[in-house]
Amino acid sequence: MIYSSPSLIRYSAQAFHCMAIAGFLSIASPSSAQTLFGFDAYASAQQRQMETEFDALIDRDEMNAWLRDFSSEAHHVGSPKSKENAEAIADLLRSWNYDVEIAEYEVLFPEPLTRELELVAPNRFTASLVEDPVESDASTSNTDNLLAPYNAFSIDGEVEAELVFVNYGTPADYELLERYGVSVAGKIAISKYGGSWRGIKPKLAGEMGAVGTLIYSDPADDGYGPGDVYPDGPYKNDSGVQRGSVMDMPTYPGDVLTPGVGATGDVNRLRREDAPTITQIPVLPISYRDALPLLEAMGGEVVPEAWRGGLPITYHLGPGPARVRLKLEFDWKMVTAYNVIARMEGTEFPDQWVIRGNHHDGWNHGAADPLSGIVAMLAEAKAVSRLAQSGYPPARTIVYAAWDAEEPGLIGSTEWAEHHAEELQEHAVAYLNTDGNGRGFVNVGGSHVLERFFNEVMEDVEDPQTGVSVQERRRANLRINGSSEKIRNEAKNRSDLRISPLGSGSDYTPFLQHLGIASANMGFGGHSGGGSYHTMYDTYEHYLRWIDPGLVYGQALAQFAGRATLRLANAPRLPFDFQGFTDNVAGYLEEIEALADDMRDKTATDNQDIREGVYGIILDPTKSFGPPLPKPEVPHFNFAPLKNALARLTDAADAYESLALSGAPASARHNYLLYTSERELIREEGLTGRPWYKHHIYAPGFYTGYGVKTIPGVREAIEQRQFDQVAGQIEIAAQVLTSLAFRLDELVEH
Amino acid sequence: MIYSSPSLIRYSAQAFHCMAIAGFLSIASPSSAQTLFGFDAYASAQQRQMETEFDALIDRDEMNAWLRDFSSEAHHVGSPKSKENAEAIADLLRSWNYDVEIAEYEVLFPEPLTRELELVAPNRFTASLVEDPVESDASTSNTDNLLAPYNAFSIDGEVEAELVFVNYGTPADYELLERYGVSVAGKIAISKYGGSWRGIKPKLAGEMGAVGTLIYSDPADDGYGPGDVYPDGPYKNDSGVQRGSVMDMPTYPGDVLTPGVGATGDVNRLRREDAPTITQIPVLPISYRDALPLLEAMGGEVVPEAWRGGLPITYHLGPGPARVRLKLEFDWKMVTAYNVIARMEGTEFPDQWVIRGNHHDGWNHGAADPLSGIVAMLAEAKAVSRLAQSGYPPARTIVYAAWDAEEPGLIGSTEWAEHHAEELQEHAVAYLNTDGNGRGFVNVGGSHVLERFFNEVMEDVEDPQTGVSVQERRRANLRINGSSEKIRNEAKNRSDLRISPLGSGSDYTPFLQHLGIASANMGFGGHSGGGSYHTMYDTYEHYLRWIDPGLVYGQALAQFAGRATLRLANAPRLPFDFQGFTDNVAGYLEEIEALADDMRDKTATDNQDIREGVYGIILDPTKSFGPPLPKPEVPHFNFAPLKNALARLTDAADAYESLALSGAPASARHNYLLYTSERELIREEGLTGRPWYKHHIYAPGFYTGYGVKTIPGVREAIEQRQFDQVAGQIEIAAQVLTSLAFRLDELVEH
Repeated sequence: MIYSSPSLIRYSAQAFHCMAIAGFLSIASPSSAQTLFGFDAYASAQQRQMETEFDALIDRDEMNAWLRDFSSEAHHVGSPKSKENAEAIADLLRSWNYDVEIAEYEVLFPEPLTRELELVAPNRFTASLVEDPVESDASTSNTDNLLAPYNAFSIDGEVEAELVFVNYGTPADYELLERYGVSVAGKIAISKYGGSWRGIKPKLAGEMGAVGTLIYSDPADDGYGPGDVYPDGPYKNDSGVQRGSVMDMPTYPGDVLTPGVGATGDVNRLRREDAPTITQIPVLPISYRDALPLLEAMGGEVVPEAWRGGLPITYHLGPGPARVRLKLEFDWKMVTAYNVIARMEGTEFPDQWVIRGNHHDGWNHGAADPLSGIVAMLAEAKAVSRLAQSGYPPARTIVYAAWDAEEPGLIGSTEWAEHHAEELQEHAVAYLNTDGNGRGFVNVGGSHVLERFFNEVMEDVEDPQTGVSVQERRRANLRINGSSEKIRNEAKNRSDLRISPLGSGSDYTPFLQHLGIASANMGFGGHSGGGSYHTMYDTYEHYLRWIDPGLVYGQALAQFAGRATLRLANAPRLPFDFQGFTDNVAGYLEEIEALADDMRDKTATDNQDIREGVYGIILDPTKSFGPPLPKPEVPHFNFAPLKNALARLTDAADAYESLALSGAPASARHNYLLYTSERELIREEGLTGRPWYKHHIYAPGFYTGYGVKTIPGVREAIEQRQFDQVAGQIEIAAQVLTSLAFRLDELVEH
Repeated sequence: MIYSSPSLIRYSAQAFHCMAIAGFLSIASPSSAQTLFGFDAYASAQQRQMETEFDALIDRDEMNAWLRDFSSEAHHVGSPKSKENAEAIADLLRSWNYDVEIAEYEVLFPEPLTRELELVAPNRFTASLVEDPVESDASTSNTDNLLAPYNAFSIDGEVEAELVFVNYGTPADYELLERYGVSVAGKIAISKYGGSWRGIKPKLAGEMGAVGTLIYSDPADDGYGPGDVYPDGPYKNDSGVQRGSVMDMPTYPGDVLTPGVGATGDVNRLRREDAPTITQIPVLPISYRDALPLLEAMGGEVVPEAWRGGLPITYHLGPGPARVRLKLEFDWKMVTAYNVIARMEGTEFPDQWVIRGNHHDGWNHGAADPLSGIVAMLAEAKAVSRLAQSGYPPARTIVYAAWDAEEPGLIGSTEWAEHHAEELQEHAVAYLNTDGNGRGFVNVGGSHVLERFFNEVMEDVEDPQTGVSVQERRRANLRINGSSEKIRNEAKNRSDLRISPLGSGSDYTPFLQHLGIASANMGFGGHSGGGSYHTMYDTYEHYLRWIDPGLVYGQALAQFAGRATLRLANAPRLPFDFQGFTDNVAGYLEEIEALADDMRDKTATDNQDIREGVYGIILDPTKSFGPPLPKPEVPHFNFAPLKNALARLTDAADAYESLALSGAPASARHNYLLYTSERELIREEGLTGRPWYKHHIYAPGFYTGYGVKTIPGVREAIEQRQFDQVAGQIEIAAQVLTSLAFRLDELVEH
C-alpha cells in the first residue's frame, strides 16, 4: 500500500534547546504556561516546546488517506481485511522505528449463518433483515465480507412465541411491566435500543423467562426523530441495524472460553456450552422498518407515556396477538485476533510503560468506529517517532497498541492484558485509550488520580472550531448545559473540570478494572450526531461528510492524546494527584448516602401508600395496571468506616500534595510507588459475584453494562436491595481506601 | 319531544323530618356527618338527609335519553338544533315548575364559506380539510348543519407564503426560534395544538408579523401517540380536526361587537373592522393527515428535541421551501343566542341567588362538550324541583342557566352577565359552572372562599368506580401523582384539598372575573382520555363507549353539583371561608417572589454567560442556532405592601372564623355582606390594558389564554418584564386585599 508521503521535519538538538528556552522565557506569564504538574519549570517549558513541534507533525492528509484505505472494506476480527489492516499498521509503526510485534490470540467468534424472523400471527410478514445500499455512498455497495446484522454471542435457537414490548428492557422497565400484569415468560421480548447496554436486554429478558429477544432502533431515539436520515443527513434510515456484542461483559469481557487467562494456542478452554457469558436465549437486532409490522400487530394495554416511540402507531405491551418465529444459527469459529504492539523504549525509565491503545477491528467499514480514532493514534505515533529521531526520545517506554476483536467483547485487549498481567502490573504507568472520534467537546473519562493531569492537557489543546482551549469549550458547555445545578456551578467555580469515572465499552476495561492500572479514555463529541454506529453506513463517505469534515477533530485528538502520552512519558515526577481523587470519591459517597436515603424515603412512602390502599383507589378499573408490590424497608447503614477511611486518605493526600509541590526529585522507585498506587484499589477476590472485576472504585454496572457504578460493591448492594451485604461492602471499600492512604504515607516518608 | 317518564317520588313533610332526625342521631359520630359549615347541627342533619333523597332522584336512564336526543345533530349557536335544544330544555324546566325565560342576544357569529389550503411548492398537495365518517358511529354520517372545521373569529383572507414551524406558538417558542435566526414575518406559522390556548397562536404569530397561521393536532399529543384512534379507541384519528374559537378572549370574551354591554337588539355596536378581539391574520385548524405533506416538505434546521412531534418525519423549522396558499372566507352572520334562564324562588332569602349554569351549544354533535354536563344539570334541576314539590323548597333563589354560544367565546353567558350586571352584583351569592364531564377524579376550580365548602361536598359524594368519597380518591391521586413534593405532601397532610384557581375556558369567566361573583367549575376527569374534543367524533356513540359508559360519572356530577347548589341555597350562614382564601393567596405570593428571584438569578447568569462569550464557544458553528440576547436585569421588588395587607387580612380572617364557628345567627344583611365580599377583589378600572377583567386575584393569562394567572397584575408585570409597573401593581393588589379585610371587620363587628 502507498500512503501519501509524509513531509519530514528535522530539528537539530541544539535548535530545539534554544527554542525551548526562548519559549520558556516568553511564556512565563500566561496561565497556559504554568509549570506542568510533575515537571520543574525548565522541563515544563521544554516539554511544551516539544509539544508545539509535535502539533506541527500531525498531518491530516495522511490521516485521511489511512482512513480511506482502512475503511475500504469490512474488517471485523477474522476477516481478511482485519488482518491486512493489522499488518499495514504494523508496517507503518515499524517504518517509524518502533519495535513491533503482532500478538495473536485464538478466540471464539460466532458469525451468522441463519437469521430468520417472521410474523406468523395475526398476519404474516417476513423481515428482510437487510440494510439497503445508498447510491451516493459507494462504500455501501462494497459488502465483501460484511457480516449481516446480528448480535455476537447470542446463542443458537429457533423459537416461536408472542411478543411483549419491554421498552429498553431495564430492571425498572420490568418492574413497571409487572404492574400491568404482563410477563415475558415464554414470550419473545421486543426492546428498543438504548437505556442500557444492549447485552443487558437479552440477559434480563432471559432471567425473566423470555425465550427470545428482538432489539430494534426506534426512530424517536435513533432515526428520523433526531434528524434527517442517511444519506440526506447522518441519522439512521429505516433499514439501518445496529450490530453488536451481547456477551455478558459485566461478568467478564474477552474471549468467552478463557476468562482470566490469555487465549494463546495452548491454554485450557471452557467448553462453549459452559461459557457463562454467552446469552441464554437467542437475540437479534432489527431495523425500524422490520420492527414496524411486528409492533403494529401487537395488542394489549397501551404503553406508558415514557415508553412511546416514534413510529406512526400506538405502541402496545402485548402479549401478542403478534406472534413471531425467530431462528438463529451461528458459525462458532475459532479465529485469530491480531493485536499490533509497538514499543519505543524509554531512555531514562525503560521499565515504566505508558500504554496507548485503540482497536482496529470494526463491525463493518468502521470509519468512525474505530478508524477515526486509530488514524489519530497513528499520526500521534508517527510524530512521537519523529521527535525521537530528532533527539527527543521519551524518558519512559511508550507502547502503542492497535487491538483486534474489541467489537465482539474487548477480546484483543483483554487477552493481551490477561496474558501479560504480571508484567503489566509491574510496569504499566497508565493506559490511555481512544476509540471512535467525533466533533464538538472533549470528553475524558478515567482514574481520578489523573484528573489534574488531564485538565492541564485540556488547557493546552486548541479547539479547532472556536480557537479556545478544549477545556474552556468543555467548561462553557457544562456551564450552560450541565445536567444539574451542581455541575453547572462547578464548571464555573471549580478550577479543574471533573473527568468521568469509567464503566466499560472500550479497551480500557481490562487495564483499569482487572489489573488496576490508572486509565483514561479520550475523544470528542456532542456535535457529531448520527446513527451510523455499528451499521453498514459507518463509511468513509458518511464520516467525512457528517462527523468530522476535514478531520480537524482527528487532529485535535492526536494533539490531545499525544500530549497526554508524552507528558506521562517524560514527567520527572508522575503527575498523579490524590486530592482530586479523594474529592471525587467523597462525591460518590455522598451520592450513595443520598441514594440510600431516597430509597428509604420512597420505599416507606410507597409501602404506606400500598398499605393504605391509596394505589387501589386511584387506578383506572378498566385497565390492567395495578398497584406496585411492597418492598422491604431500607435500613440505615453505617457509612462511618468508609468516611473514616476517606478522612484518613484525605490527610495522606494533602501530605503527598505538599511533597509533590515541594520540588523534591522523584526516584524511579518513587515513581513506581506512585503509578502502582492504583493497584491498591483492586483486590484479588474481585467484586462479589464477578471476580474478574477487581477494582473497588470503578466498575461497569451489573445491570447497566457500560454505565459506570462508582464504589460498586456498596452502590450495587443498595441498588439491588441486598441490604445484608452493604456493611461488608463498606468495609471492603474502606480497606482499599486505607491501603491507598498507606501507600501515600510511604511515598511521603521515602 | 318525549322523554322517558321520570318516576315520581313523593315524601310527606313529616316523614322527611322524622328521617332527618333519625339520620342526625345515627350519624353524629362519623366524620362524614360533621356539622356542615354554615349550618347548625339540626339544619346540617336535615340538609344531609335531603341530599340522600336528592341522590335517589338522579335518573341515569333519563340523562341518557336527553343526551341521545340533544346530540342527534350539530347544535352550534344559530343552528336550528341549538334553538330546538334550548326550547326543549326550557320546556323541561317549565315542566318542573321553574320560572323560565329564554334570554335572547343578537351576536356576531362567523361561519365558514371558503376554506382552501394547498401546498404550492416544492411539490403540490391540496388539503382535504374533511373529517371522515366512521362506519360504526352513525352520528358521524349525520352531518346536517355541521360546520366544517374552522377557527371562529379568524379574519377573512387569502395569503401565500412559506411555512415556519413554531411548535406550540408560545412566547417561549418564539424566543427560541429567534435564536435559530428564523422569523415568521411575512410567513405562515404552522403550530401544534397544545401548550397554550389556541387563540394565543394566531395572536402571537400576528404580533410577530406572520401573515397566516395553521394549527394542527400532532399525533404525539393528540392522536395515535397516547392511544388507539377512533373508532378502535377514543383518540384522534388522522382526519379529526379540533374546531374552536380564536377570538382574543384574554382581552374580553363575549360578543366581539359589544364589549361590556349586553348584546340586545338596540345596543350600540362596534363596526366589525374595529372589533379588537377578531384575529389580525387568517387561521385554520387542520388534521395531522393534512399537516403531514406540509411538514414533510419543510427544510431548514431540524427542530429542537422538545419540539418534535409524532409524525414519521424529521421536523424542520423552515422557512420553506414548503410554500402554502391559504384562503378563508366567512359568512359574518348576526345570529340569536338563546340562553335558557330558569328560576326557583327562595322561600327565606329570595333576593339571594345561587346561579348554576352549563352551556348547551356545541361545535358539533357535542355529546361530551357540553351535553354530558347539561344532562347532569337537568337531572339535578329536576331533583331540586321534586324536593321543592315535596315541601323542601330552597331557602335562597336558585337560577339554572343553559347558555348558548359558549363555544365561539363564552358569548351567551357574557352577554347575559353584562346585561344584568347590576342586579347580579347585588343578588348573586355564587355562580356554579359545569361543562363537559368525564371519568376519574373530581376537579374543582374556584374562588378560594369556597375551598372549605367544596371539601365538604367532596367528602359526601361517592366515587362510582371505587365506592370511596370523591375527595378521598382525589387525595389519593395527588398523593401519588401530584406534580410536586409540596402537592404530594399537602395531599397527605393538609385537611382540605386545594381547589384550583380559575383562568378561563368556560362560562364562569364573566361572573367571576368581570363581576366579582364567587364562582366554581366542577367536573370529573383523568381516566377519560381521548381526542374527540371539538371534532365530529364527539358523538353519543363515542361518549358512551369511551368516556362515561352508563353515565355513572354524569350521576356523580349531578350529585356533586346538586349538593353544592342546595347547600349554598340553604345554609343559614353562607359557607364562605377566608382562612382558606388567605392561605392560598399567601402561596401565590410565595410563587411570585420565587418567580422574581429565579428570573433575577437566571437573567444574571444568562447575561454573564452571554457577556463572557460562553454561548458563542459552545454552539455548533455548522448550525444557525445562536446565543440568546441579553435581557434587562431583574430588580428587587418591594413586596412589603402586599405582605402587610395579607397579614392584615389573615388577622381579619381569623376573627371572622371565630364568629362563624360561634354559632351566631346570620341575618340576611350579614349574608349579603358575606357573599358580596368577593366584589372587594375587583376594581372598576380592571386590569392594566384589559379593563373588562376586573378581578385582581384570578385572571386568564394574557399570553396563555385559558391558563390562570393569580394576582395577575403583579405576576404578569414580572413575567412580561414590565418591571417599572410592578410596584404599582403590588399596591393595587394590596388594596384589594385590604378592602376585603375591612369587609371582614365589618362582618365581625355587625
